[in-house]
Amino acid sequence: MPKNAFYAQSGGVTAVINASAAGVIEAARKHRKHIGKVYAGRNGIIGALTEDLIDTSKESPAAIKGLRNTPGGAFGSARYKLKSIEKNRREYERLVEVFKAHDIGYFFLNGGNDSADTCLKVSQISQAMGYPLTAVHVPKTVDNDLPITDCCPGFGSVAKYVATSMMEAGLDVESMAKTSTKVFIMEVMGRHAGWITAALGLAQTQPGTAPHILLFPEIPFDEEKFLAAVKMNVEKHGYCAVGVSEGLHDADGKFLAESGIKDAFGHAQLGGVAPRIAELVRGKLGLKHHWAVADYLQRAARHIASKTDLEQAYAVGKAAVELAVAGQSGVMPTIVRTSSKPYRWKIGVAPLTAIANVEKKMPRDFITPDGFHITQKCRNYLSPLIAGEAFPPFENGLPKYARLKNAAVKKKTKTDFAL
Amino acid sequence: MPKNAFYAQSGGVTAVINASAAGVIEAARKHRKHIGKVYAGRNGIIGALTEDLIDTSKESPAAIKGLRNTPGGAFGSARYKLKSIEKNRREYERLVEVFKAHDIGYFFLNGGNDSADTCLKVSQISQAMGYPLTAVHVPKTVDNDLPITDCCPGFGSVAKYVATSMMEAGLDVESMAKTSTKVFIMEVMGRHAGWITAALGLAQTQPGTAPHILLFPEIPFDEEKFLAAVKMNVEKHGYCAVGVSEGLHDADGKFLAESGIKDAFGHAQLGGVAPRIAELVRGKLGLKHHWAVADYLQRAARHIASKTDLEQAYAVGKAAVELAVAGQSGVMPTIVRTSSKPYRWKIGVAPLTAIANVEKKMPRDFITPDGFHITQKCRNYLSPLIAGEAFPPFENGLPKYARLKNAAVKKKTKTDFAL
Repeated sequence: MPKNAFYAQSGGVTAVINASAAGVIEAARKHRKHIGKVYAGRNGIIGALTEDLIDTSKESPAAIKGLRNTPGGAFGSARYKLKSIEKNRREYERLVEVFKAHDIGYFFLNGGNDSADTCLKVSQISQAMGYPLTAVHVPKTVDNDLPITDCCPGFGSVAKYVATSMMEAGLDVESMAKTSTKVFIMEVMGRHAGWITAALGLAQTQPGTAPHILLFPEIPFDEEKFLAAVKMNVEKHGYCAVGVSEGLHDADGKFLAESGIKDAFGHAQLGGVAPRIAELVRGKLGLKHHWAVADYLQRAARHIASKTDLEQAYAVGKAAVELAVAGQSGVMPTIVRTSSKPYRWKIGVAPLTAIANVEKKMPRDFITPDGFHITQKCRNYLSPLIAGEAFPPFENGLPKYARLKNAAVKKKTKTDFAL
Repeated sequence: MPKNAFYAQSGGVTAVINASAAGVIEAARKHRKHIGKVYAGRNGIIGALTEDLIDTSKESPAAIKGLRNTPGGAFGSARYKLKSIEKNRREYERLVEVFKAHDIGYFFLNGGNDSADTCLKVSQISQAMGYPLTAVHVPKTVDNDLPITDCCPGFGSVAKYVATSMMEAGLDVESMAKTSTKVFIMEVMGRHAGWITAALGLAQTQPGTAPHILLFPEIPFDEEKFLAAVKMNVEKHGYCAVGVSEGLHDADGKFLAESGIKDAFGHAQLGGVAPRIAELVRGKLGLKHHWAVADYLQRAARHIASKTDLEQAYAVGKAAVELAVAGQSGVMPTIVRTSSKPYRWKIGVAPLTAIANVEKKMPRDFITPDGFHITQKCRNYLSPLIAGEAFPPFENGLPKYARLKNAAVKKKTKTDFAL
């Protein structure tokens, strides 16, 4: 008898996480001998705890296909970390209660570092509780910081967006620098790992063009050296474009965006490292500046998604189902690069014990010796990840994004669960 | 004998100002009986004053065609306003000196309000000085605030970008609101006129979706009313997406982004109205927020340009040449809307005396009575302007933008000119 499957989106969403959902659901529909229905958690794992399940079998094939084109989390995602079993046994007992009630035998969690850990715990604890679940993690994170896998679905599209945006803004600033803005600063995500900051560097396809300086979270901020570099670039090129990670910090590990500055009301600074850097440039060099903070725009930018990223996001969703059907649990499908030029990749598999809570930062040899740009080695790694366009369909000038029915599954447990 | 033409880009650049340049240059190449070479000013009008001219005849047809796909100002633009002749007669004398030396009889200035005024002055003063120039203004401004013309080239593409970005970020926030960000704020350009803010409203294609609140520069900011609206939307929809103009001000006309707040060093607040609004939401409502400032990204976003906008930008460049060849001076080609559904437009013409220094703001009936959104009338006006996609060519995952040779014309005057 086939068992039903549970699928949940976890943590920060991406431009292509729904493509992974499509991969899971479409693959499951092809394995009806093993998998019955796919129930999605409304708002991620919270949907399992509160028995708020979505019946994806109510969605048409066209609707599921439309997920490939749609950013955000179609079923809702959550920032919710399961505690350890010692600290909160009732959460695991509740999961097992809900899964039993709905005859769920497969558990797919689509997320990053934290959710890999959750997936591993669910795999181990369900077994210990006598209700073994086949738990497979589906990788996703714009931060690109999961180990073992060559890259993380979600990252390639952010990378393509930020590199395109920097290239475009760079042309803008360059053309007006004579009488207007001399220094442009763009802030990107990636608090601990500088992968997105590195992707900005791809915009520099000719020497001297934007970006001229990248500020990585891996390299402690050196104010004097930075200001000297800005000055040099403005003198040499007429302008200076800077890319900065939200996680930039000084040698003491203090984030620049939380630099202790208070406003007149005593509130902490309004946030954003870009305005902080801009103020530094204005105050110390007296140069006219502009700054941008892309924030969610970068990770939701499905309109400029990477085709490679989209294909990989779909592939890991599909592979997760195939691994589960083959009886593997506590694992994650990975992207294995078999060649950089021409770029070739295949799906591999890794145990979650080797993934959970491990963070992959930029190798030092991906960053130039001065700490301000990316090396050719880094370009060789990054370039294939942004390759190819996969524009969504448009209607009346705007992307036509899918909205599912998200029909609720009738509750079967008689109990409520307080989060 | 044909006379040469001078073309200059003026003020803030756009995603499609180079399409207007292509329109001017390609049309001029078709009117060789009247127009010899097109010389572009390096860095706009400054190139004329300093006799730093670019010979566009050195560029191949393919290179000029590539301008249609390339954001920023290919010849360099400038924020430089000619003073009145009473205040600085030498600037006009210098222009005439340089234009005489290079046998220039046509003057095309591609810009917004200020440059329409400059173009008008050049037209009038050159005549008074005995060297009459045929001066035609080519409209361009992301602010969409020129009078008479139905819209301004450059605006439609920003509108498409900001609406797409708001739609995407809205899906992101909506999917995570249960456990994460409740209020998202996106700041856009348009200091005095709320056209770009209004364009954000197009993202709301279904009731209850982003954006929920728009803050226009035409409507004085009412803190209490705003906070009540945020609270209501979060309660009703689970989240609230806010679009705000950089020019938002209070009833006394004081810009929110310049609210007098100083940091611990006594510096004025780091700028940006989005972080200011975000801080208000956090402080007064205690809601988790995120904010984005698109800055130059919005006006340089050629990758998501409006096809309609691109075509109009090209058309006004072409029409400017045709008007000039027909002997018209002191005029500007306009976009005339002949039908909204289906959208139809044609090129008209207006005297610069009716354009210069007039600013077109949002009509009150384009804004809902509560001041927080756009009306159907506004949608009917805006929708056609973002219609159609015109993706640039891509290479290695990034847009392939043109770079011209920009060969300098040999100087003929023996004098330098200090700006």
